[in-house]
Amino acid sequence: MARIAIDMDGVMADSTQQYINWYAARYGVQVEKASLLGKPETTGFPLEGVVRQFLYTPGFFRTKPVIPGSQEVIKALQEKHDVFIVSAAMEFPQSLSEKLAWLEDHFPFISWHNIVFCGYKNIVDADYMIDDHIKNLSTFKGEPLLFTAPHNVHVEGYKRVNTWEEVGALLL
Amino acid sequence: MARIAIDMDGVMADSTQQYINWYAARYGVQVEKASLLGKPETTGFPLEGVVRQFLYTPGFFRTKPVIPGSQEVIKALQEKHDVFIVSAAMEFPQSLSEKLAWLEDHFPFISWHNIVFCGYKNIVDADYMIDDHIKNLSTFKGEPLLFTAPHNVHVEGYKRVNTWEEVGALLL
Repeated sequence: MARIAIDMDGVMADSTQQYINWYAARYGVQVEKASLLGKPETTGFPLEGVVRQFLYTPGFFRTKPVIPGSQEVIKALQEKHDVFIVSAAMEFPQSLSEKLAWLEDHFPFISWHNIVFCGYKNIVDADYMIDDHIKNLSTFKGEPLLFTAPHNVHVEGYKRVNTWEEVGALLL
Repeated sequence: MARIAIDMDGVMADSTQQYINWYAARYGVQVEKASLLGKPETTGFPLEGVVRQFLYTPGFFRTKPVIPGSQEVIKALQEKHDVFIVSAAMEFPQSLSEKLAWLEDHFPFISWHNIVFCGYKNIVDADYMIDDHIKNLSTFKGEPLLFTAPHNVHVEGYKRVNTWEEVGALLL
């Protein structure tokens, strides 16, 4: 049994799709996901800066789509491993209650005991960390796994998991 | 420089005084702190069970008194060490925003990067953990420091700090 720390945004919750959805609903332009590849998160949209503001808007975190496969694989991981959800939620205080409600909705099998909302993730003691940001993975003492997201496609030097199926193949 | 994980309730925030204050305001009986010594937390009040309900009541966590010395000593600890606030806030979801606002009010010098709201604290990697509950300290791999609270006065087998002055003497 290993302890696995799993990030929310960009790993369980589809942040990129939510940026695209909210941008289309507010500015009438449907941005192609492919056009965001390799660009820093929240950038690459016609109007610069507005997507960053979504992060401070009530409802943004609450309504993110679920990344396919995450529910099934995390449920299976829980049966074999010690699974913690570790989200850097403190930067956006209004996201705390929204993220908790989102987890209850989509991952009701995860106990509150195993949820961590933090800032720096260097305080996390685990065997594996699945995250889409190297700022979180770079200080991790266990084995980091970079979950592929549009903003990190050009990142090198980390073991990568592209889908939840790949996570399952590795850890189940 | 050491990494120090500091609990909120019963260590920075005076939970016992808040139980007494809220009980007096609602039931008209001023319970003596000395009468609670050695009794499990939230018990020992004339009406059993009502103090436990305070934990689910909006405003309870937001208005807790600050434990004397905590502000000065934590500020000084920060200048010498890597300080994280680690609170098992997930059990009471309404407490998340209240605890964050309380920290901003009374400990404005603590960055959101260094705040952790969790369930199980066994995920915390630090050199010291200051906590009033052995359920949090017992799985800790670093050096646990039991912060004295009325409910834990009979607990043995842990290095104890009775006041923030004692914490300062030990770690500054």
